[in-house]
Amino acid sequence: MPAKQQQPVILITNDDGITAPGIKNLVEAVKGLGKVVVVAPDKPQSGMGHAITIGTPLRLNKVENMFGEVEAWQTSGTPVDCVKLAVDKVLHRKPDLCLSGINHGANHSINVLYSGTMSAAMEAAIESIPSIGFSLLDYSFEADFSAAREYVFNIAKWVLNNNKEKRLLLNVNIPQLPAAKIKGVKVCRQADAKYKEDFNERKDPHGKNYYWLTGEFLNFDKGKDTDVWALKNGYVSVVPVQFDLTNYTLKKQLEKNKFLK
Amino acid sequence: MPAKQQQPVILITNDDGITAPGIKNLVEAVKGLGKVVVVAPDKPQSGMGHAITIGTPLRLNKVENMFGEVEAWQTSGTPVDCVKLAVDKVLHRKPDLCLSGINHGANHSINVLYSGTMSAAMEAAIESIPSIGFSLLDYSFEADFSAAREYVFNIAKWVLNNNKEKRLLLNVNIPQLPAAKIKGVKVCRQADAKYKEDFNERKDPHGKNYYWLTGEFLNFDKGKDTDVWALKNGYVSVVPVQFDLTNYTLKKQLEKNKFLK
Repeated sequence: MPAKQQQPVILITNDDGITAPGIKNLVEAVKGLGKVVVVAPDKPQSGMGHAITIGTPLRLNKVENMFGEVEAWQTSGTPVDCVKLAVDKVLHRKPDLCLSGINHGANHSINVLYSGTMSAAMEAAIESIPSIGFSLLDYSFEADFSAAREYVFNIAKWVLNNNKEKRLLLNVNIPQLPAAKIKGVKVCRQADAKYKEDFNERKDPHGKNYYWLTGEFLNFDKGKDTDVWALKNGYVSVVPVQFDLTNYTLKKQLEKNKFLK
Repeated sequence: MPAKQQQPVILITNDDGITAPGIKNLVEAVKGLGKVVVVAPDKPQSGMGHAITIGTPLRLNKVENMFGEVEAWQTSGTPVDCVKLAVDKVLHRKPDLCLSGINHGANHSINVLYSGTMSAAMEAAIESIPSIGFSLLDYSFEADFSAAREYVFNIAKWVLNNNKEKRLLLNVNIPQLPAAKIKGVKVCRQADAKYKEDFNERKDPHGKNYYWLTGEFLNFDKGKDTDVWALKNGYVSVVPVQFDLTNYTLKKQLEKNKFLK
């Protein structure tokens, strides 16, 4: 007969790197919910999207005393590499839950594509591991995570206890407000927004040009059911995310077309 | 009064790097369709997904005589960076079409997430530029692109002349077969498939472990309407792709839930 009940195994990763305050806050928030294991990048990996490391090998090293009693590993890879390494070389099994973050900065709307935080969570979901990416709308490393931690705990606990979905993947963004000012949680769709690029052109000391990526965030979406709207109005936004990227509407249209038959 | 008709501007990029035979074949295939401009990575960027470069600046340099008369630029960035730089710093406008590839190797099913080829095309689609990623099912740099070129030309021409979609994004994979053996083009959905990781563990000369990402491709999808099925059965697969990742089915379910209200 099996033992009463095994503790759930919770894998934690991020894209800001293992030393970022956000991941420490995530570990602290959920460590009462199960056996937590951290496998995170050894350096910042923001904007890495769903990148994987093919052309170079990866390092994987245990880190002592960074999260108290919690087992922790750092890798030289991307956030997605971290999840792959965690399952294959650290846990030797699928965890019961994967949490990514807490990201320093927003990952709403189109950011889901660029975000290493969300790509790590998506990689776990591809493996049928229920998975949540958390982001706080504050880029500062001195950000106040106290309200975020409450929501992280409640949402992670709810998923552990109630989820029946084979491939649950949530993109959770938390406004930078004191807990008392947050109005609650809103299930949303991804806002239709993008960045207008404006590369900052400079000259190096040798007279050659180089370019910094900068841009302006543009939200075209007037809907009140989007993540951007929810965050602006004091809610925690929860967007359920999928990785079947087929555009079924366009598929139907193209199937009617002669050339493509 | 404007001149009779302006030639369409076609931006070409890839993820195998500007020196890969695949991009040369793509340029050759479509250069009769408009004014082609190449902006591609200066080194291989396979598996970079939707990564962007935030922490370091980018280089952008003109390349002479690589594609005959065709204007070409190389960047130190990812495929997505290439599209952003092309629009903001090379073309100073949106092109009429963006083509990415021809990738050396398959980008069907779940590969759409890892593929730099498809992420570049997706970045253009986010900018409302009709966009197509092309991949040939042959990793070899000596691959025969002759059949691929025919399909690339026909599909690109069709999109230029017939597309009314604001955000057309196609993932086109071409089987490694002679033109006479290819049965035609099939509009498909993304197959439900993934990789089973199996990191190859080695020791460096100093006795420390390092890991190469390897894995086995697993297709769970028995459908005959998928890209994997079409390719196995001798068709060119065309998957219309979207970048609204909201899982609307799960959204409806979660909205019924008490906790998340």
